[in-house]
Amino acid sequence: MSAPAEVRIVEVGPRDGLQNEKTLVPTADKIELVDRLSATGLRCIEATSFVSPKWVPQMADAAEVFAGITQRPGVAYPVLVPNLQGYERAREVGASEVAVFSAASEAFNRKNINASIDESIERFLPVLERARADGVKVRGYVSTVLGCPYQGEVPLADVVRVARRLHEAGCYEVSLGDTIGIGTPGKARAMLRAVAAEVPMAALAVHFHDTRGQALANILACLEDGVGVVDAAVSGTGGCPYAPGASGNVATEDVVYMLEGLGVATGVDLAKLVETGRWLAGKLGRSSGSKVTLAAPL
Amino acid sequence: MSAPAEVRIVEVGPRDGLQNEKTLVPTADKIELVDRLSATGLRCIEATSFVSPKWVPQMADAAEVFAGITQRPGVAYPVLVPNLQGYERAREVGASEVAVFSAASEAFNRKNINASIDESIERFLPVLERARADGVKVRGYVSTVLGCPYQGEVPLADVVRVARRLHEAGCYEVSLGDTIGIGTPGKARAMLRAVAAEVPMAALAVHFHDTRGQALANILACLEDGVGVVDAAVSGTGGCPYAPGASGNVATEDVVYMLEGLGVATGVDLAKLVETGRWLAGKLGRSSGSKVTLAAPL
Repeated sequence: MSAPAEVRIVEVGPRDGLQNEKTLVPTADKIELVDRLSATGLRCIEATSFVSPKWVPQMADAAEVFAGITQRPGVAYPVLVPNLQGYERAREVGASEVAVFSAASEAFNRKNINASIDESIERFLPVLERARADGVKVRGYVSTVLGCPYQGEVPLADVVRVARRLHEAGCYEVSLGDTIGIGTPGKARAMLRAVAAEVPMAALAVHFHDTRGQALANILACLEDGVGVVDAAVSGTGGCPYAPGASGNVATEDVVYMLEGLGVATGVDLAKLVETGRWLAGKLGRSSGSKVTLAAPL
Repeated sequence: MSAPAEVRIVEVGPRDGLQNEKTLVPTADKIELVDRLSATGLRCIEATSFVSPKWVPQMADAAEVFAGITQRPGVAYPVLVPNLQGYERAREVGASEVAVFSAASEAFNRKNINASIDESIERFLPVLERARADGVKVRGYVSTVLGCPYQGEVPLADVVRVARRLHEAGCYEVSLGDTIGIGTPGKARAMLRAVAAEVPMAALAVHFHDTRGQALANILACLEDGVGVVDAAVSGTGGCPYAPGASGNVATEDVVYMLEGLGVATGVDLAKLVETGRWLAGKLGRSSGSKVTLAAPL
């Protein structure tokens, strides 16, 4: 078991989680969620998304949320931006870190943004240029790295190409996302290895959805290969737009439980995190998506 | 990724799963469940338990269930027996394979059967002697191998001792059970290694509950160490008596999905298994405990 001594967790619940929940969470609760999360010891919390409210109504209050959170020293609060317009809205409220994204699947890009992979890359380059000029850190997401709801298999070469372009263009970290939670540990590891051959492992993160229950096993396989950053969402929020009733992002509580059990430091107070996840599940009117939380005494 | 080429799955849903479900499943449905399972390609199905109906009312119809199933050639149908009396009841209806059990935790044995570990071992030895004389195969379970709801930590030495005694006494296979689903992959692997130092790996199985979501990751870690037999329960039945609302046995569907993804042959038809799990969830009046099933199109 050659896991790293320490793992940085990127909490994506307030963005990737909530943007895929049917229940609209009030702005004040979103702000409280981010502040509760920063109190658990998490050092990176994706706070919201400055996409168009027409596309993602759940994130229409991005500016209010970002302005409302109490920024804790030492904690990063990246926000998702789809383009320069979103970047500017984020900067207006003081965001100092942003995240850009592209799918590795041609079909997914075509369907979602009516662009090829290469056109998608062209679209986020201006954001990266501007961010560099502004001294703003940029995180990059590659989605559909292990499969696509439209085209099925995604060639590893496309995953590697998009990841490399994001890194070359200035992303300090590239998060590899199994958007539809279809991967298994051997495939996850092979994908990570292929990318790590062209992008330094220290600049990579893994992002698994637990749609088929494989997320922790996939994370374990990738940890053994040396990845040191893991995305997760408190309470396993998010669901899957392609499979109603299915699980969403891997639950941060369950990731922390595994990591602490492996002797890998996370800096996260699991009890506080469980409490926060339970509070959020209450707000969403459903039971927690974290099995650790369901097993923990109330 | 050094997983074995092939894994034998021991389906424990009809016994370990159903005995911990609140809903009483009618005898005819239990029989149909076992027959549906054998049609999926599973080669070992624990069919029922001949414990006292006073202890486990869910299994009061053990004789009727066993007599009612249609035994498929090449499929083993072990039944749990707590003592000679149970063994005799099982033999009366023609069982040709049984399973015995002991906890590795002193406190668990005390609480459940009012005996020490050594007294517990003394109690199952007569069953093993009789089975040997009768030409009946015996599988052994060691429970609480990674933790105990009463004493917390369970010394590895106690796990190894109970596993070795079961094997020495004639069990062809010893299944190592994380009864309360508390383990994480590093601890699971360390436990397996300690046991495998004294019992051949080929005679070991792993049995994980998914109480804290760790089961697949634990199985992956143990596969990498060479274990070739995995217990699982269709639809993730079972729950946890110590944590109401928590998950039960790891779902066979999710195990098969991971194994097939790893290129490990199981001989199981996943589509048929998902169909069976969905049918069972309907009988239990709840959603499936298999994430693969929840993600699969209806």
